[in-house]
Amino acid sequence: MKKTRLTQLLGIEYPIIQGGMVWVSDWRLAAAVSNAGGLGQIGSGSMMWDQIRENIRKVREGTSKPWGLNIPMMRPDFEDIARIGLEEGARIFTTSAGNPMKAGPLLKRSDTVIIHVVPSVKGAKKAEEAGFHAIVCEGYEAGGHNGMDENCTISLVPQVVDAVTIPVAAAGGIADGRGILAALALGADGVQMGTRFVATVECPAHENFKQKLVEAVDTGTLITGRKMNMLRSLRNEFTLRMAEAERKGASVEELLSIIGEENDRAEMGMVRGDVQEGVLEAGQSAGLVHEIPSVAELFKKLDAEYERALAGLM
Amino acid sequence: MKKTRLTQLLGIEYPIIQGGMVWVSDWRLAAAVSNAGGLGQIGSGSMMWDQIRENIRKVREGTSKPWGLNIPMMRPDFEDIARIGLEEGARIFTTSAGNPMKAGPLLKRSDTVIIHVVPSVKGAKKAEEAGFHAIVCEGYEAGGHNGMDENCTISLVPQVVDAVTIPVAAAGGIADGRGILAALALGADGVQMGTRFVATVECPAHENFKQKLVEAVDTGTLITGRKMNMLRSLRNEFTLRMAEAERKGASVEELLSIIGEENDRAEMGMVRGDVQEGVLEAGQSAGLVHEIPSVAELFKKLDAEYERALAGLM
Repeated sequence: MKKTRLTQLLGIEYPIIQGGMVWVSDWRLAAAVSNAGGLGQIGSGSMMWDQIRENIRKVREGTSKPWGLNIPMMRPDFEDIARIGLEEGARIFTTSAGNPMKAGPLLKRSDTVIIHVVPSVKGAKKAEEAGFHAIVCEGYEAGGHNGMDENCTISLVPQVVDAVTIPVAAAGGIADGRGILAALALGADGVQMGTRFVATVECPAHENFKQKLVEAVDTGTLITGRKMNMLRSLRNEFTLRMAEAERKGASVEELLSIIGEENDRAEMGMVRGDVQEGVLEAGQSAGLVHEIPSVAELFKKLDAEYERALAGLM
Repeated sequence: MKKTRLTQLLGIEYPIIQGGMVWVSDWRLAAAVSNAGGLGQIGSGSMMWDQIRENIRKVREGTSKPWGLNIPMMRPDFEDIARIGLEEGARIFTTSAGNPMKAGPLLKRSDTVIIHVVPSVKGAKKAEEAGFHAIVCEGYEAGGHNGMDENCTISLVPQVVDAVTIPVAAAGGIADGRGILAALALGADGVQMGTRFVATVECPAHENFKQKLVEAVDTGTLITGRKMNMLRSLRNEFTLRMAEAERKGASVEELLSIIGEENDRAEMGMVRGDVQEGVLEAGQSAGLVHEIPSVAELFKKLDAEYERALAGLM
């Protein structure tokens, strides 16, 4: 696989970042990805402060290679998470779902690398202006929360590449070596993948969730919450119930009553394994996931697929 | 640019099909694209029978190279259009927005090449089963009517490539040489582009529409009509009014009253040039369109961009 400005910036072998997914991105997955030559990430979104400290301490034992900490800025305590990260020795940060002008000054130091996740050209320019070193440019295909503008990866990436001078990693819809090569063809310096990494041996996601990813076809995901908090996840009984109510014009109050008292439907699905009543955050690339390899095996596979696709272009 | 199974099947130089867009795909554009080495197409969607005959007669005078006729199966008279096409000497057909099992038997002869446009893996398999020679696999990014499943190009294309043995052209979100290379990296044998061809000298679209495409940014399009007939077009006063009503839960009757008595909002925008009250069908790739070249200039540009992107992968 090609060395790029992103591999150079991060000190990694492959231009592949593991997304800092909520609930399922612990130190084990991060260490496995970093050891395999990508950038593993701890996803702090679902973690209490002591869990963040613990995960950072463990990932530092688990790998001597670079790793990152993802901080979703929708967390009201994101400044505290940034402080904890820096205290515990995190030096690569990705921030998402928020204003890069707030995150940049907090995290930028001579010894840190900071990357912001954006869904648009405007967001990318703002992140560059805020001093970020690189951008993850995430399309509508991606799992979890995504941009209201619904910009899709294949046309968004080249526009972002044209708009900024810093390296760009493409995210959304990518799960194999062909997708990685396509991202580089579009002018990106690498990719970020989330869904693909959930279906690995080392990921702490519930086995039922992993199995659902393997079973998912091209039409396996849907968007819910256009009125509240837009989210892509696998079709199941709960999300189809939500989508049906939305189609009928349900109010936010009605939707909240469908969600009910269950504290966190994502934790229910992704960690506890209730694949019908929980939320299983996943991107459209789920349709490309057909097995649950170890992270090391996955990297070998991605590399082979990439080289085969490249040879196919000659 | 690479020769592929698609260039071989169609007898063309570049693996590029011009989409048979409603209102703006006449014989002039088709002849220009075919003469430049792609597959030009007459879009019959908006044409009366005599116009179809006239356009076919003229395209045959305008080029000696292969060209195609697109038949949207939502037209109740699509069987008549197929008959007229065959009578007048069309030998390459693309069919869209309908059941390939109905279109295949109608158009397949020893001297025809037939291609079906699909938004999903299921549709692709069905088209192959119906005897089609190739598939255009169109993502949610594309302009005009698109699939309810919202499958995006970068993850849909490799899934379709894996599901069928016939050649696949990727469509949706592609407007430059980087996108064409990305499509081939994903395993496609070529691309279909629509929006990019509207902003050319030879396209009969109104100059105001072409100018709006040049001005469009990444967030320049939106989806309307999820309840009726889903369509991607440029944001303007009319489509934003529709979107706002939909957001508020407007009924189909209320939406029809917003559309009003204007017979065809697409013709109003795309042909008559009312860029605020008409509908300007366009895909997300509008954000990649920055100029209005001749078709011959465009092919030179696409080829140069492709070769530059390919060199960048080395």
